Amino acid sequence: MSFHQRLQSVWAAQNSLVCVGIDPELTRLPKHIREQEEPYLVFGTAIVDACAPYVSAFKPQAAHFAAAGAEDQLAKLIGYIQTHHPDIPVILDAKRGDVGSTAALYAKEAFERYGADAVTVNPYLGHDSLAPYFQYSGRGVIVLCRTSNPGSDWIQGVRVGDEPLYLTVAKQIGEWDVNDQCMLVTGATYPEELGEVRGMVGDMPLLVPGVGAQGGDVEAVLKAGVDSIGQGLCISSSRGIIYAGSGLDFAEKAGQAAMRLRDEINRYR
Amino acid sequence: MSFHQRLQSVWAAQNSLVCVGIDPELTRLPKHIREQEEPYLVFGTAIVDACAPYVSAFKPQAAHFAAAGAEDQLAKLIGYIQTHHPDIPVILDAKRGDVGSTAALYAKEAFERYGADAVTVNPYLGHDSLAPYFQYSGRGVIVLCRTSNPGSDWIQGVRVGDEPLYLTVAKQIGEWDVNDQCMLVTGATYPEELGEVRGMVGDMPLLVPGVGAQGGDVEAVLKAGVDSIGQGLCISSSRGIIYAGSGLDFAEKAGQAAMRLRDEINRYR
Repeated sequence: MSFHQRLQSVWAAQNSLVCVGIDPELTRLPKHIREQEEPYLVFGTAIVDACAPYVSAFKPQAAHFAAAGAEDQLAKLIGYIQTHHPDIPVILDAKRGDVGSTAALYAKEAFERYGADAVTVNPYLGHDSLAPYFQYSGRGVIVLCRTSNPGSDWIQGVRVGDEPLYLTVAKQIGEWDVNDQCMLVTGATYPEELGEVRGMVGDMPLLVPGVGAQGGDVEAVLKAGVDSIGQGLCISSSRGIIYAGSGLDFAEKAGQAAMRLRDEINRYR
Repeated sequence: MSFHQRLQSVWAAQNSLVCVGIDPELTRLPKHIREQEEPYLVFGTAIVDACAPYVSAFKPQAAHFAAAGAEDQLAKLIGYIQTHHPDIPVILDAKRGDVGSTAALYAKEAFERYGADAVTVNPYLGHDSLAPYFQYSGRGVIVLCRTSNPGSDWIQGVRVGDEPLYLTVAKQIGEWDVNDQCMLVTGATYPEELGEVRGMVGDMPLLVPGVGAQGGDVEAVLKAGVDSIGQGLCISSSRGIIYAGSGLDFAEKAGQAAMRLRDEINRYR
């Protein structure tokens, strides 16, 4: 099964386009979790179980684990999701980008060490920096295109002939994606640009961060971004879901927030 | 002391512009090292001790450790260099790039968890993705500009007005670098472009990978790249030095290769 088929299947089965970003920071965890031996794992598994009924992807973010030296907890969390919620793909948000021989090792890190179903990557180094990921057919390769942050316009928005660079990236990734495994990152904070990317790449799935804490508008994202059958998006929220509560009921609160986001999204599909 | 001053001081003291990239792969290590409990650490410390007299920087590459789940060996190796060769800066080659809140965690990973003196970063997400690194004054922030790999022209070479994107990047990083801590990555495989970057950024130091295994020409790099006092370059070789030998004398062979590269470089300064 291609990664695109896998997404279509989980979108339909879950009736949800929600992706929950798992970005744990020790100081923001509930007090009773902070005191655990493996706080990121305990927090992450509770969030995962509570949110699983309402989502179609989980997206743990690598830096949050790396800054704390908690790679082992990241590996265990991914293993937990795949054991207990095997139909829900895990996107490792790592945004790697390096020359080919090194990219092969980052691909190994994502797909073999962690067993992730997909990984985010940076296109700045070009085709040979992406090719090693393409070798893993069935796994997702999610390329930064038009990111959600304020500074993204500097490089991504430069004019290449008549079009901005992010559209050049979108078009080229579409051509390179012979295994139906690529996605593009297009921030919810720029819905007009998201619509341009959608117009360029047909039904290629898009990963859309930036709703929730970053302020992206759900209705605008849906209007601009769905594919020809009202799917095609992994709409990601991290802090708005995982920190919805801060007490003993933090997981329940996170699940409710995921459900609300699912319902809000489905209202506009 | 600014990071630029630190480099100027070590270039002069060591009379060397050589940076040794430490990119260990288990299958390429000498057989007697492969059998050790911490093979990357044993290999890395031996290479470091043998090369230290001839170099002005060490550059461990993160993916090589991450693919093997050997972050603890990376941390120990950096600690070893800083204890035994405290004047030689350690560049963590990680090429991170993410939105501001996440970039702050990657900066924490590089500068606090690992205690690296400098880290390589990707500019594709713009200023807010670099700003957290700039907060660590005295540490180096080494921005990808014109990379050494075959695919680098796709994005880095697009025309922005009259100039290629990599020159736009070079100019802007020069303006953002208020603490004398930035460097630019400009591959040895493109000496003409390296010269253009040098012309754009005055005496800003450049990290130049691509000599050795990738085939960059040392004389061309020196002619195009030195600053106004014949320094300004960290010329990096990895495989050409660390795998110069494969037997019991691998470290001695690596040291000799580092010395030869130092001498070859100094011939053209």
